[in-house]
Amino acid sequence: MSKKKQKIKALKAEVKRLRRALEAPKGPLVSPLAPAAFPELPIVPGVRFATAAAGVKYAGRTDVMLAELAPGTAVAGVFTRSATRSANVLDCQAKIGSAPDAGAAIIVNSGNSNAFTGAAGDASVAAICDAVAQGLALPVDRVFTASTGVIGQRLPHDRITAKVTELVDALHPDGVAQAAAAIMTTDTFAKGAKATADIAGTPVQVVGIAKGSGMIAPDMATMLVYIFTDAAIAQPTLQAMLARLTDRTFNAITVDSDTSTSDSLMLAATGVAEHAMIDDLTIPEAAAFEAALHTVMHDLALQVVRDGEGATKLVEVQVTGAASEADARKVASAIANSPLVKTAIAGEDPNWGRIVMAVGKSGAVADRDTLTIRFGDIVVAEKGWVSPEYTEEAGAAYMKNDQITVAVDLGVGAARDTMWTCDLTYRYVEINADYRS
Amino acid sequence: MSKKKQKIKALKAEVKRLRRALEAPKGPLVSPLAPAAFPELPIVPGVRFATAAAGVKYAGRTDVMLAELAPGTAVAGVFTRSATRSANVLDCQAKIGSAPDAGAAIIVNSGNSNAFTGAAGDASVAAICDAVAQGLALPVDRVFTASTGVIGQRLPHDRITAKVTELVDALHPDGVAQAAAAIMTTDTFAKGAKATADIAGTPVQVVGIAKGSGMIAPDMATMLVYIFTDAAIAQPTLQAMLARLTDRTFNAITVDSDTSTSDSLMLAATGVAEHAMIDDLTIPEAAAFEAALHTVMHDLALQVVRDGEGATKLVEVQVTGAASEADARKVASAIANSPLVKTAIAGEDPNWGRIVMAVGKSGAVADRDTLTIRFGDIVVAEKGWVSPEYTEEAGAAYMKNDQITVAVDLGVGAARDTMWTCDLTYRYVEINADYRS
Repeated sequence: MSKKKQKIKALKAEVKRLRRALEAPKGPLVSPLAPAAFPELPIVPGVRFATAAAGVKYAGRTDVMLAELAPGTAVAGVFTRSATRSANVLDCQAKIGSAPDAGAAIIVNSGNSNAFTGAAGDASVAAICDAVAQGLALPVDRVFTASTGVIGQRLPHDRITAKVTELVDALHPDGVAQAAAAIMTTDTFAKGAKATADIAGTPVQVVGIAKGSGMIAPDMATMLVYIFTDAAIAQPTLQAMLARLTDRTFNAITVDSDTSTSDSLMLAATGVAEHAMIDDLTIPEAAAFEAALHTVMHDLALQVVRDGEGATKLVEVQVTGAASEADARKVASAIANSPLVKTAIAGEDPNWGRIVMAVGKSGAVADRDTLTIRFGDIVVAEKGWVSPEYTEEAGAAYMKNDQITVAVDLGVGAARDTMWTCDLTYRYVEINADYRS
Repeated sequence: MSKKKQKIKALKAEVKRLRRALEAPKGPLVSPLAPAAFPELPIVPGVRFATAAAGVKYAGRTDVMLAELAPGTAVAGVFTRSATRSANVLDCQAKIGSAPDAGAAIIVNSGNSNAFTGAAGDASVAAICDAVAQGLALPVDRVFTASTGVIGQRLPHDRITAKVTELVDALHPDGVAQAAAAIMTTDTFAKGAKATADIAGTPVQVVGIAKGSGMIAPDMATMLVYIFTDAAIAQPTLQAMLARLTDRTFNAITVDSDTSTSDSLMLAATGVAEHAMIDDLTIPEAAAFEAALHTVMHDLALQVVRDGEGATKLVEVQVTGAASEADARKVASAIANSPLVKTAIAGEDPNWGRIVMAVGKSGAVADRDTLTIRFGDIVVAEKGWVSPEYTEEAGAAYMKNDQITVAVDLGVGAARDTMWTCDLTYRYVEINADYRS
């Protein structure tokens, strides 16, 4: 080959490489991992929705949703443990468990998170709660709020309170899809999920919506989730179910996401369905409901990961054979949060050495010689070394999938855990280097 | 102009355009944060160096360094706590504290980390130690090894043992710069530092070299550091000093870096200097030496950050006013490890909300209303809200510096901590998505 031909070949390769590098930053408008469509969601007896365009920050779209809950509705909630959590979160935490007789309301705005806004933030929450309490003739301790969006800017709550009458007049049972759209911020798709449970012969609906800002690591207002059901469940039982399912769903999508300043997950059970009140976690009716609730929470949690900023691959991390459940979670989260693992997956590189690294750094009991690592069904490493059957070709072919399973068996016990994450791409850096500008 | 020449010209223009569009991803050959030059390092009495090109993996460069240490040399070491640490690390840990009468040797190769190589890895360490012990007439328990580079591939140790005679013959006191070059892997510059201490009128040298693979998060063989001095210090005293300074230097550059599989930091004190043996941490001579040692360790630690993959900014995170030292470290590491903080800095975005987020998620005692955040000397947020004097223009101008200080005062106590990190850029993703291909 002539020198010039060689030069042309090298330059062409460089152009190809650079174009590929540039491709991701342009980014799709909707995550490539998004579901094909927003699901058809049934009406949940006892719940009505309304949305409005209050112009908190965004123009030309709805940015407030109101949900009205029938008298007797039990409300459970799980919130961020952040030391700098928002005024809204503190207010909601104080109100969970208040007497349900009068019903309840949830009002959420997008565009401004009302976080780190000092005493003004508290005043905004109070003003919104007062307006909704008056509009729906509710005690103020039955009005729950959330705000999501930019932080450190005073919430122009007058724009929201000015819309309360309009919202109350517009309430109707069929508005959950509109509600899902109104709470979006940097989400590339609206998130909804449903399931049905049979409670001793009575069918009940479980419907949920979520907003995940698309941030892989925690930030303000990473996640808001609202789940509605017409089942009749006592508040303490509802709260217990919600808490234990959260560990396997929303707290399993990234270890850090449980501590952003606005994360809120609320579950409202209106009790309109005509079955005996469930007030014991151990009865079969509780198990039937919990299974449906898990379906909805798992579905929404994975949709949040699928909308991870810049995500091109959904990654399930399965850990088995751990000495304890805490160890299993440590290993899963070390892998799911490792930038080196996540960039390797973005590059479709079956870099199992980085999995070994993550296991090692996790702090869990592990033994090099009992560790097994699989990509999907492919055994990559076992007995302290690369598997004799493993080939880089097989590993590289598997990594081209848009759903990847990384399975680690520690071989030192019987505990297990599963977490979900996504890859770390150029697009993630682009979005987060430019987010506010 | 010929057709081929035109083609080359057009392709060159396209490459230039694409590189400009990507800017960081093409990346400089040497980190923009690198020091202007490798320092002039003095001879350390009692230490001799040699390097060789063994062809472990790289061609056309040296990849093995041997350091010979005079009889009586005390050797201290700090190693990774990873559960999957390499055979070399386990071997070194077993040997630290062995009788110093016969002297000692350190042999390090680049190109292959000998990690996750099963029983073969142990055999490689033994073979190398045997060869060096024979070549230098040392007991085998005074030969320390390290390997750095690709993991999960059998170390071709025959290539190293075949060079031992050549290395022994080439030993000379003036070879520390060559040693620094031989242990580089993905480093973009060789790292060296020096300091002098006055021990009761006797000057002693402290000279160190480091290899940081440039990985921001932990991976195999992230960091190797070797420090040499002619001071006379008892091994237990030397070990205690090294351990406590590590917390303020190499363990402060990222919280996770302390747990990669090959991280090794060794300190050899030959005792050739003619002063009374230092065997007590509380005497003034110990303090004088410790100050010099700290200078060298701090300098090398920052050089490792300056060579962070894709780094364009060096970031110092200062935390004050914490309730405890553990809390101060939690907050500093939450900030220094946050991808959202690091991408914002890459984008020169004074996104102080992400600092609030990191404080909140850290788990440390914090109060929104006593928190103060500064970028350099600029007060950004205080008393639970953005500072009235703060302007985005001032913040944005500050973020254009290539050295950034993020200072957080928690206002709840008197404990403090400082950590160092770098920004997270496209280039980081590119390097780590493509590392092995």
